[in-house]
Amino acid sequence: MPQYAIGLDFGTNSCRSLLVDLADGTELGSTVFDYPSGELGILTDPSDPNVARQNPQDYLDGLEAILKGALVEARANLPGFDPADVVGIGVDTTGSTPIPVDDQGTPLGLKPEFRDEPAAQVWLWKDHTAHAEAAEITAKARELRPRYLAKCGGIYSSEWWWSKLLHLKRTAPEVFAAAHSFVEHCDYIPAVLAGDTNPATLKRGICAAGHKAMFCDAWGGLPDKEFLSALDPALADLRDRLYGNAHTADTKAGELCAEWAAKTGLSEGTAIAVGAFDCHMGAVACGVKEGTLTKILGTSTCDITVAPRGQDLADIPGVCGIVDGSVLPGHYGIEAGQSAVGDIFLWFVHHLVPDSYGASPEEKFAHMEEAMAGTKPGASGLLALDWNNGNRTVLVDVRLTGLLLGQSLHTEAHEIYRAYIEATAFGALRIIERMEEFGVKIDEVVNTGGLAVKNATLMQIYADILGRPLKVAASDQTCALGAALFGAAASGRIALEDAQANCAKIRDTIYRPIPENAAVYRELYSLYRTLHDAFGTAAWSGGLAGVMKDLLAIRDRQR
Amino acid sequence: MPQYAIGLDFGTNSCRSLLVDLADGTELGSTVFDYPSGELGILTDPSDPNVARQNPQDYLDGLEAILKGALVEARANLPGFDPADVVGIGVDTTGSTPIPVDDQGTPLGLKPEFRDEPAAQVWLWKDHTAHAEAAEITAKARELRPRYLAKCGGIYSSEWWWSKLLHLKRTAPEVFAAAHSFVEHCDYIPAVLAGDTNPATLKRGICAAGHKAMFCDAWGGLPDKEFLSALDPALADLRDRLYGNAHTADTKAGELCAEWAAKTGLSEGTAIAVGAFDCHMGAVACGVKEGTLTKILGTSTCDITVAPRGQDLADIPGVCGIVDGSVLPGHYGIEAGQSAVGDIFLWFVHHLVPDSYGASPEEKFAHMEEAMAGTKPGASGLLALDWNNGNRTVLVDVRLTGLLLGQSLHTEAHEIYRAYIEATAFGALRIIERMEEFGVKIDEVVNTGGLAVKNATLMQIYADILGRPLKVAASDQTCALGAALFGAAASGRIALEDAQANCAKIRDTIYRPIPENAAVYRELYSLYRTLHDAFGTAAWSGGLAGVMKDLLAIRDRQR
Repeated sequence: MPQYAIGLDFGTNSCRSLLVDLADGTELGSTVFDYPSGELGILTDPSDPNVARQNPQDYLDGLEAILKGALVEARANLPGFDPADVVGIGVDTTGSTPIPVDDQGTPLGLKPEFRDEPAAQVWLWKDHTAHAEAAEITAKARELRPRYLAKCGGIYSSEWWWSKLLHLKRTAPEVFAAAHSFVEHCDYIPAVLAGDTNPATLKRGICAAGHKAMFCDAWGGLPDKEFLSALDPALADLRDRLYGNAHTADTKAGELCAEWAAKTGLSEGTAIAVGAFDCHMGAVACGVKEGTLTKILGTSTCDITVAPRGQDLADIPGVCGIVDGSVLPGHYGIEAGQSAVGDIFLWFVHHLVPDSYGASPEEKFAHMEEAMAGTKPGASGLLALDWNNGNRTVLVDVRLTGLLLGQSLHTEAHEIYRAYIEATAFGALRIIERMEEFGVKIDEVVNTGGLAVKNATLMQIYADILGRPLKVAASDQTCALGAALFGAAASGRIALEDAQANCAKIRDTIYRPIPENAAVYRELYSLYRTLHDAFGTAAWSGGLAGVMKDLLAIRDRQR
Repeated sequence: MPQYAIGLDFGTNSCRSLLVDLADGTELGSTVFDYPSGELGILTDPSDPNVARQNPQDYLDGLEAILKGALVEARANLPGFDPADVVGIGVDTTGSTPIPVDDQGTPLGLKPEFRDEPAAQVWLWKDHTAHAEAAEITAKARELRPRYLAKCGGIYSSEWWWSKLLHLKRTAPEVFAAAHSFVEHCDYIPAVLAGDTNPATLKRGICAAGHKAMFCDAWGGLPDKEFLSALDPALADLRDRLYGNAHTADTKAGELCAEWAAKTGLSEGTAIAVGAFDCHMGAVACGVKEGTLTKILGTSTCDITVAPRGQDLADIPGVCGIVDGSVLPGHYGIEAGQSAVGDIFLWFVHHLVPDSYGASPEEKFAHMEEAMAGTKPGASGLLALDWNNGNRTVLVDVRLTGLLLGQSLHTEAHEIYRAYIEATAFGALRIIERMEEFGVKIDEVVNTGGLAVKNATLMQIYADILGRPLKVAASDQTCALGAALFGAAASGRIALEDAQANCAKIRDTIYRPIPENAAVYRELYSLYRTLHDAFGTAAWSGGLAGVMKDLLAIRDRQR
């Protein structure tokens, strides 16, 4: 009898479904729903570029649309397809993306009295308004609870749970007071499908809790009340209305409720897996295992690997999280990432690339990639830092900005685009180096996401800079596929490792480093490291008078 | 009886004439001739962005065209105009722009055997191929003849005479051997008009000699043979075929020869003034005097002031030249400048501004200036260095490049344009500060050049950053006007100071600093200075971790 699972992937601008055959990963149906609110689904504030919120109604509208859509497609693709053969549903989302909810678990943003209140909406992962609170939490934890910090890289981020809750309390106390509790987006969707959003009882995932909310069984779950109270007594009060347990994503969060079964045509009782973050589930669909780093190359990146529970794993400074079970049950999940990769290219193409390269962004990218085809590393004399949206790993600092150096009066847009590609690759290399410095060996890199699939120019530059062969996952929708694998596992009908073995596949094309390019990039990376450390770390002290001259020397040699 | 003079201004891409009435500066005729060769008159090399040469034939074709054109216009504008009333002709050019010539003073580039040889053409001021030789000359002079260096700011530039001659000797020895002598462009044109280009006898100007060829009466003219021999014996040999005297530009270089009188319709015997550099003559037409800095704001800038001969003037590190009589006879002329100002904006508009701002560069500039009208200093979070073409003053280093810092994912082109305007103004402020540090007080700034006349947005930002009221010279063609004033003075019919008093006028609009903007710009300038010193000076050592954070703090406050 066939077995299918559905993965639901809630991204930054849209959500999508993927219905797969668990025998071999065949993708039978997939639908995308673009969030209708705000700017590409994001509620922004022209006076503050740090603001990024979402409308919870978009999630509910999207949820129904993508579930139905997947079934319609599966029926069209496979005559005789039966929704009853869908054994489980898994959910991944962005994060930390907390939702203020009332005591029934209803998002405040859905309630008429809060519909126009930005603070009552969903706080999207990339909302950076809480940078002052993040610094405060870091300082307080360093003083009172250093072990809390050690597991999240040594610096607490403005993108994370407690920073956002504290900022909300400080800047919109009436909204905070109205919020009975808070729920991560990835925990909310499974609760909706299971028909019980009660914040006291809905199952929370270890992935979000462990990475973003300082949850760890070693210290009894969430941060203790004394610590929270030192930040704000209201957070200590809130702790009782949050949660005491968190679960791996192969755990069943519940079963599909009658209402959503009726809405969608799926069977009531279908297993719903505990939710997790997109990249963690994507990593599983890339075949993550010990020694394999998976990179999701999108608007930002997420770099995920695992280490065996038995390994005496040091905390890794600047690596956002090491959480037991956050990726594969029985392993430590290790998460790092870059705050902006594709977003930098999109910003550049939309704001700074003249129409001589093409009429549309797609044409501009294509023609810039053509224009750079004949040129060598270093030939432009340019060097950039990839910090237009701050630096997540290894500096964990949103109060950093972009830098482009080496412009002459002849510098062209495609040269700058290449410098930005290189900068993001240097940032990626810094992450791998840091993991290896602390005992997490990286033997192979498996990539997924739009850039990995569509941008061969970028992938070759990445291979040259990372100095390792780069593979690409077969599926175009690895996050959704990973969610489906967890949905399957939650049903108890198939083990996660079997589902992964059946469905996580690799493409034939492998990008291998070109030795002469790799050699030049090692020189450029050393200059990148100088800029990275000079602008990004308080400990650095030195001179920079050689940087421009070294770049010019490389340029003159490479032309 | 009316008295007229003609100024001839040979710029980077074109030359122009200006025929003025010496009674009041009325401009009766003016013609522009665009150099037809190369790219906008510049012979470039796609494999080496440092190369900038010119075709000497362009100068001769231009000379005839602009002289004739001025007379045609004057006749049209003033019935009864008589060319015989033109009492003198003055000439300014770019520099150091040396021309290799044969023993008759014929430019090698005009001779059939050298017509296709780049090294035999004119070496335009902005040719930067000789940067290694400049460093070598600086090192050798520091060791053997420190006083040579002191007068040119402590660092000899790749844009200057001896660097270019030495590079030519090293890279094209057969061309160097064929050159009997070398003549600055500004000395060549008066010699052509006077009908005697013999390099042994033509009158050389003190402006070019003193600023660029290390000529100073205090040490017997050009650098001595022992020093030149230490660089290359061929330069010591050449010294005898150069010159032993150099003259101020109110000196008569000769009289218009029959051939050029016949060609143009001017009277044979009309006084021809000794030539000088464009900005030095332009300064006179801006009314330069003690305490007045004149700025020529064009593709690059030239900043000129004078100090009394009696003043005990220290050498000023990084200021290109202090030369007796180079601007006003009887005063020290003091020259500084920025290697690229308008050129940075032109590069930006041509290569990086999308068509959403307009179809043409002019439209793009206009719309970017409109878009920045409502914004405050610091509101973009951006900070740039103005080094896309190196730094002339005060670092004297062509091996520097551009830098832009503070980009987010929302940064727009007009914000970057503003950051570049600000960067060039910060560079301008650094020059004023350096002059004042060494005893040259600047009470007022008089501006000229296309940007001063056309770009009110830029002028206001400059006023806010320089912290002084900015005036604008009345004439659109101050360099040519200044040349005309020297032509007049060379005739002996009117004193230079009288011609200057009659003709050097100021516009009504004066740009005054807005106090609240000036205050923010002082903060931003301090960050600019940090970057300037960090990347531009070997002596600097420190940390930069505060730079991006300070910019963000200012941004958040100013929005």
